[in-house]
Amino acid sequence: MNGIPHLTFDLDRPGVSRGHLVVPKGADCEALFLPVFGLNKGEGPRLLITGGCHGDELEGPIVARRLVEWLPEGQTCGRVIIVPVLNPPAVEACSRNTPIDGLNLNRVFPGRADGSLTERIADAVSRILLPMADTVFDLHSYGPGWEFPPATTTHPVADPELMAKTIKMAEAFKLPMTLVWEHAETAGMFDTLAQNQGKVFVCPELGGGNVSSEALAIYEAGMRNALIALGLVEGKAESPTFRQQKSSLTLETRRPSDELKSPARGIFEPRCSMLDVVKQGDLIGILHPMDSLSAGSTHILAPGTSVVCGIRSGGYVKIDEYIALLGRPRNR
Amino acid sequence: MNGIPHLTFDLDRPGVSRGHLVVPKGADCEALFLPVFGLNKGEGPRLLITGGCHGDELEGPIVARRLVEWLPEGQTCGRVIIVPVLNPPAVEACSRNTPIDGLNLNRVFPGRADGSLTERIADAVSRILLPMADTVFDLHSYGPGWEFPPATTTHPVADPELMAKTIKMAEAFKLPMTLVWEHAETAGMFDTLAQNQGKVFVCPELGGGNVSSEALAIYEAGMRNALIALGLVEGKAESPTFRQQKSSLTLETRRPSDELKSPARGIFEPRCSMLDVVKQGDLIGILHPMDSLSAGSTHILAPGTSVVCGIRSGGYVKIDEYIALLGRPRNR
Repeated sequence: MNGIPHLTFDLDRPGVSRGHLVVPKGADCEALFLPVFGLNKGEGPRLLITGGCHGDELEGPIVARRLVEWLPEGQTCGRVIIVPVLNPPAVEACSRNTPIDGLNLNRVFPGRADGSLTERIADAVSRILLPMADTVFDLHSYGPGWEFPPATTTHPVADPELMAKTIKMAEAFKLPMTLVWEHAETAGMFDTLAQNQGKVFVCPELGGGNVSSEALAIYEAGMRNALIALGLVEGKAESPTFRQQKSSLTLETRRPSDELKSPARGIFEPRCSMLDVVKQGDLIGILHPMDSLSAGSTHILAPGTSVVCGIRSGGYVKIDEYIALLGRPRNR
Repeated sequence: MNGIPHLTFDLDRPGVSRGHLVVPKGADCEALFLPVFGLNKGEGPRLLITGGCHGDELEGPIVARRLVEWLPEGQTCGRVIIVPVLNPPAVEACSRNTPIDGLNLNRVFPGRADGSLTERIADAVSRILLPMADTVFDLHSYGPGWEFPPATTTHPVADPELMAKTIKMAEAFKLPMTLVWEHAETAGMFDTLAQNQGKVFVCPELGGGNVSSEALAIYEAGMRNALIALGLVEGKAESPTFRQQKSSLTLETRRPSDELKSPARGIFEPRCSMLDVVKQGDLIGILHPMDSLSAGSTHILAPGTSVVCGIRSGGYVKIDEYIALLGRPRNR
């Protein structure tokens, strides 16, 4: 018996509380202590904010840290629980997956108490924290190597009422893009588990590429807007300025046509930008073979009218790697 | 005898020529064939452009590819040789260093004919290509994980006349920053070898972080400006617009005070941006410990008035990792 997941402190205590969520030790490593922040202002919405599920997406942990700083003065009712980093070993390794067992934390929910580390983290979160919330924001980003706008995403949800509530919540961030993203693998996602329990689950995808102070200010503004919409914080929501604009688009993607993959290996040269509107035949990017300057480069063209949700940074890609995600305005 | 480095074609031929620079096989791998482009329009400047020295800096190879497209129509005199990728194994591995021997190509010049792969690449470039040029542009970038402006850099050169010519050439790119960068390790650099031979060597550092189509257009404009300044191409040089500005700063750094390092491990939150002017005590960034929300975060402050040349993206850093490079206007 290696113990059961538990909190080192009482999250029900009024006001601010801080402590750890203990993920019990297993055959593969010692117990993990995940720092947790709680702020209990009584009746009202119950919100769980998590970050650092993937170790190479640190926008979320940094924005979560900022909330920890100002929520004690800003929150007027309800309960907020914040876990800036769900997967410290992955963060230390700057790796999407957990280095100890190679698993993707966002594919093993609800986890297993007797599983490997990643499964035990999921189990602890599912059993201890998720029941304390009606709304979950799990902070991700599109990761390094991509150009992706500040966005909120959700995957299609079967229940139309929950879908509508989820999209409304996602749009309340007022970030440049709200994306209903048809995804290949939703089994084992934190999203799916929470939504199956009737909770509103929004996955902010806080940009891609590098994490600048300017970008972080936009992400923080989006979080503040969402907290205002929930009624946890007072104030007026304002669309953050992104590329000299204050616009918000709600888009959707369809599988597999909206996921462009590399037809060969080579150096990918992006020829359009995130949020560009492209028509059929427009140039998305060029794939340059590395072994010859005589052999032709491959032009990758837009299959139809669409908005570029995200595009790979210039870099070396292998065959069948994703190079762009396209979308279109959502039909209501 | 594994052969000697050689070209598969005649670079002296008038007009466009394409072929390979052969890096002979060694104990560690087979021969490498590096694609080379040549354009000989007779008398005039002799320019060598190289990219892809480091496998995680692909701005250079992409911009070099663009030059290969339009130089045949644009170049009016002189000779240009372009090697978009010096180190294909590093590019395939998305790695700064060569995966086969773990060496940094930009620390082993002039290389060794009987050395490991990285040393043999340096030897082939030093012996075959470098003698054909009076001016060298070796295209780098600050790499992923950093916010860094489009820039040209040079290290201090002992000969004042060559230093002046080098800075003039670097400024001719009209990129947002020209940096005279006092660097800890210049031994074995391509720069040092070329400068010791009296050549003008400029190292464009084409940004950092992700490689977008917008950024690539700026880098290409800088290259065009430099070719115009050399007289190889006709036209009017124009400062590219970067962050709604068309400004150019010439800065210098001093060791070790201008290299800020992380005092601890943790999640680094950048609190300023590239090209910001900071005063003593201004907040550069915050370092958040990952194991506790009660323990204090470390504020990293500017040691004096300076310009932020580059700053780490938000991410996990270990102790003594570089987190910012500061500079100041160069004293003439």
